[in-house]
Amino acid sequence: MPQNPPEPLHAIVPAGGAGTRLWPLSRRGAPKFLLDLTGSGRTLLQQTHDRLRALTEGGGVVVVTGSAHAPAVLDQLPDVGEENLLAEPSPRDSMAAIALAAAVVRRRHGDVVVGSFAADHVIADQAAFERAVREAVTVARAGYVVTIGIEADHPSTAFGYVRSGDPVALADGTPAPTARHVLGFTEKPDAATAAEYLATGEYRWNAGMFVVRADVLLDHLRSQRPVLHAGIDEIADAWDTPARKAVLDRVWPTLEKIAIDHAIAEPVAAEGGVAVVPAAMGWDDVGDFASLAGLVPAGDDGVRVLGERGQVLADDAEGALVVPGTGRTIAVLGVPGLVVVDTPDALLITTREHAQRVKGVVESLGEARDHLR
Amino acid sequence: MPQNPPEPLHAIVPAGGAGTRLWPLSRRGAPKFLLDLTGSGRTLLQQTHDRLRALTEGGGVVVVTGSAHAPAVLDQLPDVGEENLLAEPSPRDSMAAIALAAAVVRRRHGDVVVGSFAADHVIADQAAFERAVREAVTVARAGYVVTIGIEADHPSTAFGYVRSGDPVALADGTPAPTARHVLGFTEKPDAATAAEYLATGEYRWNAGMFVVRADVLLDHLRSQRPVLHAGIDEIADAWDTPARKAVLDRVWPTLEKIAIDHAIAEPVAAEGGVAVVPAAMGWDDVGDFASLAGLVPAGDDGVRVLGERGQVLADDAEGALVVPGTGRTIAVLGVPGLVVVDTPDALLITTREHAQRVKGVVESLGEARDHLR
Repeated sequence: MPQNPPEPLHAIVPAGGAGTRLWPLSRRGAPKFLLDLTGSGRTLLQQTHDRLRALTEGGGVVVVTGSAHAPAVLDQLPDVGEENLLAEPSPRDSMAAIALAAAVVRRRHGDVVVGSFAADHVIADQAAFERAVREAVTVARAGYVVTIGIEADHPSTAFGYVRSGDPVALADGTPAPTARHVLGFTEKPDAATAAEYLATGEYRWNAGMFVVRADVLLDHLRSQRPVLHAGIDEIADAWDTPARKAVLDRVWPTLEKIAIDHAIAEPVAAEGGVAVVPAAMGWDDVGDFASLAGLVPAGDDGVRVLGERGQVLADDAEGALVVPGTGRTIAVLGVPGLVVVDTPDALLITTREHAQRVKGVVESLGEARDHLR
Repeated sequence: MPQNPPEPLHAIVPAGGAGTRLWPLSRRGAPKFLLDLTGSGRTLLQQTHDRLRALTEGGGVVVVTGSAHAPAVLDQLPDVGEENLLAEPSPRDSMAAIALAAAVVRRRHGDVVVGSFAADHVIADQAAFERAVREAVTVARAGYVVTIGIEADHPSTAFGYVRSGDPVALADGTPAPTARHVLGFTEKPDAATAAEYLATGEYRWNAGMFVVRADVLLDHLRSQRPVLHAGIDEIADAWDTPARKAVLDRVWPTLEKIAIDHAIAEPVAAEGGVAVVPAAMGWDDVGDFASLAGLVPAGDDGVRVLGERGQVLADDAEGALVVPGTGRTIAVLGVPGLVVVDTPDALLITTREHAQRVKGVVESLGEARDHLR
């Protein structure tokens, strides 16, 4: 029996979010996704695009980003081209961004499967990622909203969780290889709750990836958020016409700001319409410096340097993360687990333990230091 | 009975030493004594000079420094004048520096009392300092080498100690107000030994101040280090003549490198010729960043900033010392007791606890970073 060719996938990459917890490395003007945070020579956005190349053969990649970042995105991803770069006049959260991309793709390509993948995450195991997405595409064909659930290797309090139930069936009635119904999503839990989640074996990390037929996604949006759907519809109708700018400028600012998790994933899961494909793929959202430190290899001295190792003199600083960004020599002495981020106009010093609190520092910058955000 | 006028004092200020433990604030080219390390608006050298003003009325101040620093010293202390600035062609340690100054002063002013005071210490209680030095001058008149012993308020392991014995008599046979014979000097002790010292009540910190008649000092030098004495004698004879440079260039490099403590204080103490005047005067040698932190006032948040406080954003960093030196914003988060020294070409991050280890960092700079020393 000849194998069917893989279902074509149209990837949607929402490239937004400043990555505030990675300040002062990540800035409003140079957000996380535009940075090479792993020392690989490719930015997170480029790595995301690289990762989708094989999966989107026969389909394509659409990037949605803020107007201010559109030139940088095009510069980093020349293959995407202006046609597949959707520039938002202002941030309206993930539902509007993903729905607009899905609606534009649908008008261009029909009821294809779309998959939304954040522009600023890392995935170590490409083969596992591809396997999971390919299954998700098949399950999506059967009408589900499909998310990828990351096998949790520790009771993280930094991620939301997705709870799985019974197996799902594919369009042809056969059972999916690994996909299960989603019973629900949870916000970031406290440590005790996270440990309970792990003990049940039913919970996985919500990596914010959604794979779904474009028509299914937009139908859910119509049911759940009819006003938002109407706005997206109007913009998508105008997108590939001369009216795009006028309609976008008029309608976009009125759109509801809501995350896809709240607008669709949670309510549709409650109706039994969401599936999860579990996968272990070395995923990380690079959410803060503790997370980033885990992605930068340690030297013989246990110090992790993101940048020129020759600029760092370390003694008794095991587990420290140093990001030299000014050409200066940085000497760290007797400070294990320290985080040092050296940039031309701002210097951050904290510890991996306090990494989640960096957001508060940025919030306290105040007007006098607004230019540092 | 009319009071005698105070004995005139000729102060000798050896201005040497890079202050390696204060790197990268203190450098070979900008040593500790040339810096304003207390935010007072006066450098340590200027504060030393200010402190000696009243005591040296009728006498004077002679500064001994390396040739490279002579212009900066003159610039900071215009009152001293070129005549009273002795420039060493190379560092030969404190005995050569102090003996040369004493020999030059003796030739100019006779058998006056000289007092040697480091250029890079701080003293909070000026009145207590003056009282102690005035008594030291009187005791020196009787032929003693007199040191000032600082009342220890904690069992420091960062200072040497001086042990006192019986009271001494003045030249007229009356007992000195507080001075006692010195039984001996000790190097920096370990913590247990330091605690034992304090418990006896006999030990005080050796602040490296010596007050002595110029002729007595040079006689001791002749007995203890005849070759060094002969060299100093030859240079001093030539000092105020056109032969100065030729003699200095020929003889200076041959002089023994030895500290006054080893050359004179210790052996003469063993002979009963050294006295100590005990004093509590808020003395500190600003020997490292832990010491420096104690001299910089803390803000409401418990953070000590040497420089522009407005450049520092601190949260949960009680007891930290931050030295902003580049105009950048420095954010410190969750790092109590941290030491951050920000300079244009080098950044040091350590803790007050590890302050003594900074010297090791400088030693490890290596050839590639020799310019940072």
